[in-house]
Amino acid sequence: MKTNAYAAVAADKPLVPYSVERRAVGPHDVEIEILFSGICHSDIHQARGEWGNSTFPMVPGHEIVGRVVAVGAKVTKLKVGEMAGVGCLVDSCRTCGSCTAHHEQFCEKGAAYTYNSTEMDRTTPTHGGYATHVVVTEAFALRVPAGLDPAGAAPLLCAGVTTYSPLRQWNCKAGDRVAVVGLGGLGHMAVKLAVAMGAHVTMFSTSPSKQADATRLGAHAFALSTDPATFTTLAGQFDLIIDTISAPHDYNAYLGLLRTFGTMVLLGVPPTPSPVAAFALLGGNKRLVGSMIGGIKETQEMLDFCAAHNVVSDIEVINADQINAAYERVIKNDVRYRFVVDAKTFHGA
Amino acid sequence: MKTNAYAAVAADKPLVPYSVERRAVGPHDVEIEILFSGICHSDIHQARGEWGNSTFPMVPGHEIVGRVVAVGAKVTKLKVGEMAGVGCLVDSCRTCGSCTAHHEQFCEKGAAYTYNSTEMDRTTPTHGGYATHVVVTEAFALRVPAGLDPAGAAPLLCAGVTTYSPLRQWNCKAGDRVAVVGLGGLGHMAVKLAVAMGAHVTMFSTSPSKQADATRLGAHAFALSTDPATFTTLAGQFDLIIDTISAPHDYNAYLGLLRTFGTMVLLGVPPTPSPVAAFALLGGNKRLVGSMIGGIKETQEMLDFCAAHNVVSDIEVINADQINAAYERVIKNDVRYRFVVDAKTFHGA
Repeated sequence: MKTNAYAAVAADKPLVPYSVERRAVGPHDVEIEILFSGICHSDIHQARGEWGNSTFPMVPGHEIVGRVVAVGAKVTKLKVGEMAGVGCLVDSCRTCGSCTAHHEQFCEKGAAYTYNSTEMDRTTPTHGGYATHVVVTEAFALRVPAGLDPAGAAPLLCAGVTTYSPLRQWNCKAGDRVAVVGLGGLGHMAVKLAVAMGAHVTMFSTSPSKQADATRLGAHAFALSTDPATFTTLAGQFDLIIDTISAPHDYNAYLGLLRTFGTMVLLGVPPTPSPVAAFALLGGNKRLVGSMIGGIKETQEMLDFCAAHNVVSDIEVINADQINAAYERVIKNDVRYRFVVDAKTFHGA
Repeated sequence: MKTNAYAAVAADKPLVPYSVERRAVGPHDVEIEILFSGICHSDIHQARGEWGNSTFPMVPGHEIVGRVVAVGAKVTKLKVGEMAGVGCLVDSCRTCGSCTAHHEQFCEKGAAYTYNSTEMDRTTPTHGGYATHVVVTEAFALRVPAGLDPAGAAPLLCAGVTTYSPLRQWNCKAGDRVAVVGLGGLGHMAVKLAVAMGAHVTMFSTSPSKQADATRLGAHAFALSTDPATFTTLAGQFDLIIDTISAPHDYNAYLGLLRTFGTMVLLGVPPTPSPVAAFALLGGNKRLVGSMIGGIKETQEMLDFCAAHNVVSDIEVINADQINAAYERVIKNDVRYRFVVDAKTFHGA
């Protein structure tokens, strides 16, 4: 089945209208008419070949929400007419230790990512959510609870689970003091989710202009990371730091903000390694850890949590022909806090 | 009470015989006639003023085992004639969050360390185990189970708990694959303890000459850390890495040896910060953590574990007048694996 889409055709070219083939709906497949598709910074990195692993043409998009329009004979998870989502993964081996532990993103055979990847046959290219329709095996489709706004829910499929997962891994709970470093697509979700979990949340930003937004998002306190006094005043205060920054910054300064046995979670990947002083970890048995998206079970849990706590992403809805301009604004951090493409504008593309 | 001892009198002078005053035995105090006192590398750093916090004269030593010779009226933990130990701590505030959580080493008011520190009055200097006797409040005295060799047990009070604590914190259990990096005082204890916990242990060393010893200590495998092939062959193999190295080394290479959700524990403090690549942590939700000694409850648990599993340190027993020479050999890693001073040789000093 041909479906209208937008694709990157080369690393140095803008995205253009494109027609992408979706497979026929198999017995375990779900066909989704896409309603909204989020723009993640990683779309830009891959569309522009910045990670060195890009295959063109490429239809980006792994923050997909839409309506089920067809299901295979054996599908039990979703029915026609229900809302569904697709995140970063569309398949995995389903048998390795990581997959059986519900961490499909770490499939030992290599998961099938939603775009710029292949199906598990290692041959068929996968294409993402900048399109009118997608076909996915039900095991990797998510149920999007009816109460969630579909446009605001789209970014939950990547930004949502990427921030929800470390909060759960590190047992964020009522009364914990959580620092969120960087107020962008990930940071604004981390604030909302940590607040919904009952934590006392402090937003760290380089920009005083973000304070009002931090408050609006639910943060209880704001700290200016460009002020050295911040790191003495707040030393030893936090149980958990969610660090969403991809620019170089001093991990040791942030480790000093942790309580004993506290954890700093890296979600961003700065372009160069950052020096870590061993004593910044030894003094207080502290932890510097990484977290990468989340598995399918955890993504469903996150969506259900968001529905229960009325959490969605702050979004700006755009049309397909605004994608290239939106990319430029994402690069300048000029979005509060996620662009979402109205997928009906792919129909005419 | 005057007690014979050895003290550092200045950062640039050898240790010399010294007479140190011990307090009268108070109602909660235990007086211990020291039998053996271990030499820890941190003794040398402090005796030589290398940490910038040294007060002289200083009687080093925080790996103390001896016999109880007097107890205060209110003491219930120990009786005269029993074997007792003292580790790195002799008191703390006992009321802060860290103390009530049994992590006295992180006392929020600052613990009283066994030497080169003060009692909680912040005035009375503390002096360590290079002496014939020590007086300590029972809350910070340890019971040394009768089955443990007193000389081999002395290093357990620091090297033992420093390696036991991270193995417990990170839930080392039967079947886990544990890498121990560096075969010295800490490394040899980490091997013995992880083996006793049922783990499959691989010793990483820069020196092929350590392989026979690693095997003798119970390690199931040996890996040469100077061979780059080690890091590809063993990539993704380990649940836990216990890194005892204080020299600069590449953390990222070792993080590559971890399984998903694996943990690398730093016990050593290299002289300069080490670059950490965020993706080395994100790819697999890995953890780089620190651990510093352990609390009193954990130290007792470690001693009981060692007695149950017949674990002590490999030692070389020396006399008091060999301490300065022993320091030089420790610096050259020329000890397998801990010097222990026979404390009766302080009597004639």
